[in-house]
Amino acid sequence: MIGKSIHEISIGDFASFQKTITETDVYMYAGVTGDLNPVHINSVHAEDSMFKERIAHGMLSAGLISAVLGLQLPGPGTIYLSQSLKFTAPVRIGDTVQARVEVIEKTDSKNRLRLKTVCMNQNGEMVLTGEAVVMPPKVDS
Amino acid sequence: MIGKSIHEISIGDFASFQKTITETDVYMYAGVTGDLNPVHINSVHAEDSMFKERIAHGMLSAGLISAVLGLQLPGPGTIYLSQSLKFTAPVRIGDTVQARVEVIEKTDSKNRLRLKTVCMNQNGEMVLTGEAVVMPPKVDS
Amino acid sequence: MIGKSIHEISIGDFASFQKTITETDVYMYAGVTGDLNPVHINSVHAEDSMFKERIAHGMLSAGLISAVLGLQLPGPGTIYLSQSLKFTAPVRIGDTVQARVEVIEKTDSKNRLRLKTVCMNQNGEMVLTGEAVVMPPKVDS
Amino acid sequence: MIGKSIHEISIGDFASFQKTITETDVYMYAGVTGDLNPVHINSVHAEDSMFKERIAHGMLSAGLISAVLGLQLPGPGTIYLSQSLKFTAPVRIGDTVQARVEVIEKTDSKNRLRLKTVCMNQNGEMVLTGEAVVMPPKVDS
Repeated sequence: MIGKSIHEISIGDFASFQKTITETDVYMYAGVTGDLNPVHINSVHAEDSMFKERIAHGMLSAGLISAVLGLQLPGPGTIYLSQSLKFTAPVRIGDTVQARVEVIEKTDSKNRLRLKTVCMNQNGEMVLTGEAVVMPPKVDS
Repeated sequence: MIGKSIHEISIGDFASFQKTITETDVYMYAGVTGDLNPVHINSVHAEDSMFKERIAHGMLSAGLISAVLGLQLPGPGTIYLSQSLKFTAPVRIGDTVQARVEVIEKTDSKNRLRLKTVCMNQNGEMVLTGEAVVMPPKVDS
Repeated sequence: MIGKSIHEISIGDFASFQKTITETDVYMYAGVTGDLNPVHINSVHAEDSMFKERIAHGMLSAGLISAVLGLQLPGPGTIYLSQSLKFTAPVRIGDTVQARVEVIEKTDSKNRLRLKTVCMNQNGEMVLTGEAVVMPPKVDS
Repeated sequence: MIGKSIHEISIGDFASFQKTITETDVYMYAGVTGDLNPVHINSVHAEDSMFKERIAHGMLSAGLISAVLGLQLPGPGTIYLSQSLKFTAPVRIGDTVQARVEVIEKTDSKNRLRLKTVCMNQNGEMVLTGEAVVMPPKVDS
């Protein structure tokens, strides 16, 4: 139950996770984070918004990126240092979001990786873009 | 049920939300995002980690920032454009996290705000720092 | 799966349900109802309150009364008309709450029952008192 | 993080909170309260009921009233003394419920407020009516 060390990872390596975001996900996420913004939990209000219906929290999709980093690439033992996020399109209830991470830079001396991180919906539309910096697990951890 | 427009907001304005992060939050968040990293949901594994116990997902705290932006400052109707995040310390189960946002830049012509966004624990230790860029609701929205 | 009709119920009949109220219950209830009052979900804030710790939502205990009415006495098919509630003591996380209902009045011509409804904790202390008025299921329902 | 004292509150003051009640809410509420009445969680049974479909627990809507009292008017620090509830129409899954509280009586000498409390659905139909009595937070609390 330990991920890949920096020596086992190459530039261009990638991994992904895909999940359909349900109303249940949005409501549980709202309860956990306290983000009861009416655009997420009030369908009457949301009809009058620019989105015309309730949408998922943008930061929920960011959680899928964290899942790929922590479970697959590099995997368990990774230290998450930073993340940048651009929210480029809304995620609607019922959309299937794929989070994908790809290694774009290695700094062996500092044990650091930079990864391109994106989320796209079932139509291939980008909903979230950004970059992550992580420390993979050390060989002897 | 509409937040503040850019004309009602000044540099230095701030808002915050505080919540104790429980085991329940961590487990529900893990289920919603698929982030089943053992450091969050496996106490046997977590004892051997550098944290010595299960910790909350860093991105869960980021959700509290989104809650403040979407509910308080600017509030409902805000468009979330981007967020940068540095994870500076772990959040342990039972920690009380305060998310705080403060306006640091206004661009009236583009209807954009830049905010300093931080999360700190009950001891005042920063667990998350970064910046958000948002579009407040328009007056006529 | 149908409850008792008014002809099967006598004054003095009673039923109860008992459950330990956990932190999980309080947090899930907060998310469902939107009741993120810091006295329920913020342990730092709650320490400074008159209760000295996080307490359960009073209305959560009222839900246990509804459970007894709808599942046991009279049971499925009951129409819940009204409820009065006095919150007489706080429920702390970990308390075991017993909801008890007892028939105190029957009006056969209107198919109505009045019941005394109380919740007490594991020490026998009343945390909630009041009365319910219900219509039991009709024989032919 | 403290609500309004009685001196800051006037007769006629009001506040509200609105949320779409989902199947998720009903199921989580059922689990928390133990109210597994088939009219809420059994669609086969509910089709044969007078409601023709599963409905939300009446007491779930009452939780939205508590949310308004505890978060907005009077807000954090409020002591909830009593509540009367009349269930006047069912809430169906997918209905958007607005809880609204309005101050109708002030007793400064006892630090008590009486409020009219109602819940209505997206069509303006009353689903719950009643009154609450609360003690607002003291100035020095």
